Amino acid sequence: LDYQHVQVPFEITLWIMLASLAKIGFHLYNKLPSVVPESCLLIFVGLIMGGIIYGLNDRSPPVMDSDIFFLYLLPPIVLDAGYFMPSRPFFENMGTILLYAVVGTVWNVFGIGFSLYGICQVQAFRLQDVSLLHNLLFGSLIAAVDPVAVLAVFEEIHVNEKLHILVFGESLLNDAVTVVLYKLFRSFCEMPTIKSVDVFAGVGKFFVVGLGGVLVGLSFGFTAAFTTRFTKDIRVIEPLFVFLYSYLSYLTAEMFHLSGIVAIIACAMGMKRYVEANISLKSHTTVKYFMKMWSSVSDTLIFIFLGVSTIGENHEWNWPYICFTVIFCLVWRALGVLVLTFFVNRFHVNTITSKDQFIIAYGGLRGAICFSLVFLLPDFHRKKLFIAATTVVILFTVFVQGMTIRPLVDLLAVKRKRESAPTVGEQIHIRFLDHLLAGIEDISGHWGQYYWKDKLEYFNSKYLQKILLREYDQPKSSIVLLYEKLERKHAIELAEAGQLGHGPPQPSLQFGFLCSNDSTVIADQKLEDTLSPDVLNNMKEILARNLYRIRRMGPAYSRHTLPGESEPTEHAQEILILRHKSL
Amino acid sequence: LDYQHVQVPFEITLWIMLASLAKIGFHLYNKLPSVVPESCLLIFVGLIMGGIIYGLNDRSPPVMDSDIFFLYLLPPIVLDAGYFMPSRPFFENMGTILLYAVVGTVWNVFGIGFSLYGICQVQAFRLQDVSLLHNLLFGSLIAAVDPVAVLAVFEEIHVNEKLHILVFGESLLNDAVTVVLYKLFRSFCEMPTIKSVDVFAGVGKFFVVGLGGVLVGLSFGFTAAFTTRFTKDIRVIEPLFVFLYSYLSYLTAEMFHLSGIVAIIACAMGMKRYVEANISLKSHTTVKYFMKMWSSVSDTLIFIFLGVSTIGENHEWNWPYICFTVIFCLVWRALGVLVLTFFVNRFHVNTITSKDQFIIAYGGLRGAICFSLVFLLPDFHRKKLFIAATTVVILFTVFVQGMTIRPLVDLLAVKRKRESAPTVGEQIHIRFLDHLLAGIEDISGHWGQYYWKDKLEYFNSKYLQKILLREYDQPKSSIVLLYEKLERKHAIELAEAGQLGHGPPQPSLQFGFLCSNDSTVIADQKLEDTLSPDVLNNMKEILARNLYRIRRMGPAYSRHTLPGESEPTEHAQEILILRHKSL
Repeated sequence: LDYQHVQVPFEITLWIMLASLAKIGFHLYNKLPSVVPESCLLIFVGLIMGGIIYGLNDRSPPVMDSDIFFLYLLPPIVLDAGYFMPSRPFFENMGTILLYAVVGTVWNVFGIGFSLYGICQVQAFRLQDVSLLHNLLFGSLIAAVDPVAVLAVFEEIHVNEKLHILVFGESLLNDAVTVVLYKLFRSFCEMPTIKSVDVFAGVGKFFVVGLGGVLVGLSFGFTAAFTTRFTKDIRVIEPLFVFLYSYLSYLTAEMFHLSGIVAIIACAMGMKRYVEANISLKSHTTVKYFMKMWSSVSDTLIFIFLGVSTIGENHEWNWPYICFTVIFCLVWRALGVLVLTFFVNRFHVNTITSKDQFIIAYGGLRGAICFSLVFLLPDFHRKKLFIAATTVVILFTVFVQGMTIRPLVDLLAVKRKRESAPTVGEQIHIRFLDHLLAGIEDISGHWGQYYWKDKLEYFNSKYLQKILLREYDQPKSSIVLLYEKLERKHAIELAEAGQLGHGPPQPSLQFGFLCSNDSTVIADQKLEDTLSPDVLNNMKEILARNLYRIRRMGPAYSRHTLPGESEPTEHAQEILILRHKSL
Repeated sequence: LDYQHVQVPFEITLWIMLASLAKIGFHLYNKLPSVVPESCLLIFVGLIMGGIIYGLNDRSPPVMDSDIFFLYLLPPIVLDAGYFMPSRPFFENMGTILLYAVVGTVWNVFGIGFSLYGICQVQAFRLQDVSLLHNLLFGSLIAAVDPVAVLAVFEEIHVNEKLHILVFGESLLNDAVTVVLYKLFRSFCEMPTIKSVDVFAGVGKFFVVGLGGVLVGLSFGFTAAFTTRFTKDIRVIEPLFVFLYSYLSYLTAEMFHLSGIVAIIACAMGMKRYVEANISLKSHTTVKYFMKMWSSVSDTLIFIFLGVSTIGENHEWNWPYICFTVIFCLVWRALGVLVLTFFVNRFHVNTITSKDQFIIAYGGLRGAICFSLVFLLPDFHRKKLFIAATTVVILFTVFVQGMTIRPLVDLLAVKRKRESAPTVGEQIHIRFLDHLLAGIEDISGHWGQYYWKDKLEYFNSKYLQKILLREYDQPKSSIVLLYEKLERKHAIELAEAGQLGHGPPQPSLQFGFLCSNDSTVIADQKLEDTLSPDVLNNMKEILARNLYRIRRMGPAYSRHTLPGESEPTEHAQEILILRHKSL
């Protein structure tokens, strides 16, 4: 037996396997995931694992290594988030998101930091040795909402798109603020005196970290798009470039102390459009599927590790400090959201309702980023207190808030996401309105979002597409593509209902290798992931019903009659008549 | 700048990026890959890289770490090979493959070892200090044909299926022999005296290593299949299990000193059938695509590293030893193939032609496995000579044999692979004959391969499928599935030619999310990888032509007329008449 030799990959594989099996286990009982969020269950599994390890070894189980978290586990999740970010709502609400992410986070950091400092002044709590700077440092790491935790919970509750993008966008973009403030306070803690210059440098640094991240991300994204122009002859490595370039953008940003999260999101959003056009549809399916898979596994591992790391002797328990941390986290976030939304609503027609505000405040979950940051703190005598407080805040937000948010959303009747994809008609109208609004803005001299969007689109089609796309000379309107897709689907339905009317196909003519059905692969992302034989059968039934309607509507179509005038009860009768005729 | 922090993932990503970009570079010039095999080009890139590193640092560039090779680079390639192994020709030629892999490899090891020992006895060469055991040890690592090199070259020359499987199967299965002999001679080298018991133990060990590998692989494969029974609700992590379980089988086998290559192949071949039936078609596409991508990258990295590692001061140059090694490798392999094939041909109706024998002998390429094994040798004073000889043999086989094998295949007019997939008719006939032959064997009492295949199939459908498949109660004949697929394709063609005749489809009915086209995804693997807009256009043309024929044949079909009796020159005329009528 030579375990030493294979230890590293073997243990990594086993951890991933455990994570995947845990996921399967939860889904075997359909009722469980609908009540308790998966993140809670995973932390619970982690706690049990940690308890077992602690019991067997009689020492603290290994805590999650911050390097492993930031270098290997976080990037897949953020890449997935950036790549599948719905760009329209994101850019439409960009201002609000940035306000929450920047001003809101700063507000929370200082609010939590100063009020905890106030608590430390109470003699009875015996916390006088925790300085203001240490409290602010703690505030900087505990204030930021965690994208992993938010994603895990909000993906399950299906709130409306705007609310989702507000919470989720904030959790992603606040990374730049967190990075700056955390590093600033950390270096302040080690400095003997703090000059006002340092404070101003910190403010300037925020722009460098955020915008630098965007720049790094976009440059890698465009390089990726440019590279995929030349992969025509080796389709098989196309998906690789999507992953490699986005990972490089993250690592490069981290290397220069910029915001890696912002970089990878900029990279993913920048490349998506061009890469999708360049690579084959099969490669694209692989990219999407693998991204989802990877982020799902990372996510699972993070929550399990969170649970495992909780067990052990890293904690210093101080009731007042920990309780007040939880309370201040909730209070300052609620206040921040209220105040900021008040200003946001004054400038928008489409205001954020008070229900939405409540969910935004309540959805401020903390997660593994805080946890990793608190372990990265330099050693000082109260570090274990901070670790304990962070752990409690994370467990409180994930378990209490995460488990109650779904009932609350039901109770408040928060607007949900619409289930169906927009129809062709809707899409055409949206596009028409965009052009119209851009024209109105141009005439009225108001440089609003439609004006800039139009300008960006012009720049894109004039320069970027020519450089980054492989076949720029043959652009096809997406409406035409959609029409072709629908017609192909229509044909398939007819074939499956056996109504082709051209006699049976000739299998011996060897169509098999002449046809390409690649283009039929893309469909609604969410639906495809859950397609199972039962669903398929269900669909076939629906199709069979619809097909009947089509057949009836097809030949009988007239400009003067409305479709669907006859009652569904007539169907059986009509079929009988048709049968009779054919006999 | 904080390079230390991100160094490991950054450098790994950069290496993979370099490999991928090199691949793109070669394919930009279409003529290059058709003359020189990609493996040669990659080694060349590696040599240049090594030269640059050597020139800049003035010390040997890092050699490929054997651990990295065996633990991370080799498994993806072997998994890919095992998963896409054409099982029918593999099992049909199993006996021959095993003969080549076991007897042939042993023959080569002892042949090369003893004859090199003979060379060492020549006083003029100053090699008397190389003992017989060391020569045998060297023989054991240099004798085995390398699957990575063979795959890289044979994938490009498209010889007939039988010839391909003979060379490739041998290169995979000889791993068990190599592992045993290499470890045996290595331990002999360190022993003071060798007892005859040890020799017999070695022979017994071969069966343990080989059959143990198969057992480990199959058990992991069946576990994987069993696991995918329960992934219905979380399709997104399905592909993961295929990779995790096969990797675990490899690592477990390595841990117990069994043959990891044999284990991973058994695992892949064992699970394939059941996993394919259990997981969604989209997951399966991802599995296939990612496997190909991964193995392609590993392959590229291996050849680049081979080139890089060649440069440096690890070599001791001794002309006679190195030249005779190359000669003996060629001669003993040729002799072995001749002798073994003589016996094989006596027992088979479908004999191996002398042309095929030549290609089998000539296709015995050496590669990275030898290279890693020679670096794993314990330090002794002639290790550098062995490294030099191994490097020369690898470069000779990959460059000289790899580059000349394609012209030779052309020159000898070796039977090529048939380009098209078998038709439905052929498939039905093959299956029919299988049943017939199994019946004949059963009646005549001859327990041949058809008999065992039939028994295995019975066992499979009676027990295995019930345990491992999710929906065993609804099995669909593959012929029925194929028919459905073809009918769907036929419908699509009609739609694309605008001949549906049911009026335009109603896009506003929102078919988009009702239809599933998953089942149209699977098509000929090779073709899909190379689908490009040009090919698509080409296909459309072909389809347009064929569609005309179908339309014409469809309604006019009669049992008494043969299709295609009218000449293609009539088409234009007939179209004119049809047009006329419709006006």
